[in-house]
Amino acid sequence: MFDPVEKLAAFTRFPSVSADPAFQSGMEGARDFIASLLADSGFTVEVVPTPLHPIVLAKRDGDPTWPHVIIYGHYDVQPPDPLNLWQTAPFEPAVRDGRMYGRGAADNKGPLMVHLAAAVKVLRENPDLPLRITFLVEGEEEIGSPSFLPFLQERRRELAADFVLLSDTGSPNAEQIVITTGLRGIVAGEIEVIGPRSDLHSGVHGGAVYNPIQALAELCAGLHGPDGRVNVPGFYDAVLGVEDWEREELSRLGVSKETYRAFLGVNGFFKNDGYSPFELVRFQPTLEFNGIFGGYQGEGSKTVIPSRAGAKFSCRLVPDQDPIVIVELLEKTLRERCPPEVELRLRFGHRGAPYLVVPPGRSNTPADQPPTLARAFATAERAVARQFGKPPLFLREGGSVPIIADFKRELGLDSLMIGLFLPEDNLHAPNESFHLGVMAKGIEVSASILRSVAGAD
Amino acid sequence: MFDPVEKLAAFTRFPSVSADPAFQSGMEGARDFIASLLADSGFTVEVVPTPLHPIVLAKRDGDPTWPHVIIYGHYDVQPPDPLNLWQTAPFEPAVRDGRMYGRGAADNKGPLMVHLAAAVKVLRENPDLPLRITFLVEGEEEIGSPSFLPFLQERRRELAADFVLLSDTGSPNAEQIVITTGLRGIVAGEIEVIGPRSDLHSGVHGGAVYNPIQALAELCAGLHGPDGRVNVPGFYDAVLGVEDWEREELSRLGVSKETYRAFLGVNGFFKNDGYSPFELVRFQPTLEFNGIFGGYQGEGSKTVIPSRAGAKFSCRLVPDQDPIVIVELLEKTLRERCPPEVELRLRFGHRGAPYLVVPPGRSNTPADQPPTLARAFATAERAVARQFGKPPLFLREGGSVPIIADFKRELGLDSLMIGLFLPEDNLHAPNESFHLGVMAKGIEVSASILRSVAGAD
Repeated sequence: MFDPVEKLAAFTRFPSVSADPAFQSGMEGARDFIASLLADSGFTVEVVPTPLHPIVLAKRDGDPTWPHVIIYGHYDVQPPDPLNLWQTAPFEPAVRDGRMYGRGAADNKGPLMVHLAAAVKVLRENPDLPLRITFLVEGEEEIGSPSFLPFLQERRRELAADFVLLSDTGSPNAEQIVITTGLRGIVAGEIEVIGPRSDLHSGVHGGAVYNPIQALAELCAGLHGPDGRVNVPGFYDAVLGVEDWEREELSRLGVSKETYRAFLGVNGFFKNDGYSPFELVRFQPTLEFNGIFGGYQGEGSKTVIPSRAGAKFSCRLVPDQDPIVIVELLEKTLRERCPPEVELRLRFGHRGAPYLVVPPGRSNTPADQPPTLARAFATAERAVARQFGKPPLFLREGGSVPIIADFKRELGLDSLMIGLFLPEDNLHAPNESFHLGVMAKGIEVSASILRSVAGAD
Repeated sequence: MFDPVEKLAAFTRFPSVSADPAFQSGMEGARDFIASLLADSGFTVEVVPTPLHPIVLAKRDGDPTWPHVIIYGHYDVQPPDPLNLWQTAPFEPAVRDGRMYGRGAADNKGPLMVHLAAAVKVLRENPDLPLRITFLVEGEEEIGSPSFLPFLQERRRELAADFVLLSDTGSPNAEQIVITTGLRGIVAGEIEVIGPRSDLHSGVHGGAVYNPIQALAELCAGLHGPDGRVNVPGFYDAVLGVEDWEREELSRLGVSKETYRAFLGVNGFFKNDGYSPFELVRFQPTLEFNGIFGGYQGEGSKTVIPSRAGAKFSCRLVPDQDPIVIVELLEKTLRERCPPEVELRLRFGHRGAPYLVVPPGRSNTPADQPPTLARAFATAERAVARQFGKPPLFLREGGSVPIIADFKRELGLDSLMIGLFLPEDNLHAPNESFHLGVMAKGIEVSASILRSVAGAD
């Protein structure tokens, strides 16, 4: 008997923190656990080495004409700090009030267990189900999935499939499930402005040199126009319009601006250029400053002209912005604007493409999608309505999960992302937990999808 | 026999670091030393308590009709760190190549000893010299002279004098002495911009809020106009014009722009609005950013929208800008410009007024100055020419010595500032030293001034 709650507790017990080498044995334990569980459930398991944390690949093969679903998850978790804020120890899972507490219970061990339990269930019901299933469980999601793209490229042939099914996104509450239809891409960078060869006395030399903080402030301030839009020529050229159905879905989210404003703790929202804040975070690209630094930062004052100053920023990109093009535009614009009296150094860090899937039947300009995907979306919509009492909302999300765009670009695969996290799950924070009611309903939804894709509903 | 070099070595041996309580006994040692030396030289010494480091007040009284010169100096020094960069220990004074090495040898023990040796010399030559001299030697100069103004106010009556004589400013080289005719004032402040109640995920919420770093960058960038001038309405209203004689003196400085540019290590000078860089640092006010901070500053990237960001700045003021008015203008301008979506916090720190003395006979619009001051300036000019081979340049300086403005405002006293520091003296840096040739010549110049003021030249 496969008890998903008991399996989740056992899985959560392994401290599989990918970011910290001290947790190596926890990583191994979680990996062995999920590999064994998949093998015991009838899958052919391969543990694929990577430069860092191996990927668990588990297949139910079959006739090549059968549909093929890839189920994605990750066995690594965020660090548990600060430990003193946990009510029970992060790696001693405990059930309280219908929730399983523990680091990774929600992100992503619980949702992964949902789909595994669903697969076990449908295959027990129908051992001859005409469906190929591949579980792909990585161990580097919390550190940016550095081994994932090379893995996809290497295994391109055997990962040919109909679509990807996963739950690594959120929903607003336990009654309203969101199926995520889009993710923003990302480009991270750093601007550094270098002035005099060393810090200078601001009395003796003040007025003679271009203060690097001033040049930096001018460059940063110039990156947005008075309308709040990113002021980089060409930045919006590839941005797709928002379709009416997307705005309609969003209008059903049921959160007021005032509630959101109070949650953020701000006096008002950013300049909106005609978009609501809910639309801005989902449909529009951004350039946000993440950090700024330079000169004296201690108590009181120190009257220096600093030698250098810098700022970190990241852009969130929307379909069809290309991270490579955006980097080129930023570089060109900043170099053109930097005053010649100072030196500009630019560094660009990680980048990921945006992603968008149009749920079949929603758009006026239907995409060319495999019928299996259309069937999976339709089944998901009905099954969510049946299990949770309300149909799901199909919404884009503001965050970035670059592997979803990688699946699309490298393998041509769209993703069906069923949001099983709730705001109270405390992802990446102390007292992370997973809602066991959502878990049980999620298993039924996932089972319905698998059956339907196999033509067995 | 008063050997000034030997006395300077003994004085420099005391580690009189005012900023660090660990050096308390060094402070006491230096204070006792200079007090005893003044007493042994015939002065009536009083050690005046302050909340921190006492002031040494030493008088040669006399007939109230005699001229009265105040000689200012300080017995405290900068911290000696980093110790490993000193060729010989900072508090074990050593003579090499005609220089006395040691922390405080130049700033300000050597120059103070110059004037003390000069006073001893002229009084030995003429014990009946009709001149009142008051030495005023403080111990808090390197920490901003917090006790100085209250002391001046308290002792206003007995400090009624003709002028102040001091050497706490610099000259470009051992042949070209500068007599400093002006100092810039200062206003230090900090801008803080507060946005959301905590750091936010830049994917989930990016686009909805006014990023505090962006608001800060806009505020900072807006504080200068495209011409490089400070863009605060009213900022320049009280700025006095520069007289022709000042530009002429400056043109004789003999440093090329190219030399200065290479020294600063910049590609070019700041926007000049018609002023040369040498003029900008002396004749024009500034607003310089001293530090900036906010959000993530570590390696790589962290995609947060920070809750707050801040910048430290300081303005250098020129005659007749009033620090109190400038603070009001800055506060008003920043509050008006800050977008309402974020909260602005402003803090203002230390402030000091600018200072200007017109050397008698130079200006077309002569000031109302005591004849003693005129005589002192004229004698200084001749004595410097005789001792150093070239007449001094009368120049304003870009730095701030707020006590000089305090002397003027509280007691109506102008200052005769004879620059005895050279660039190679390494003030505030490792291997500080004082040029013993400059010292010997300086004693003769000071002696000439004292004699002349007493009518005995």
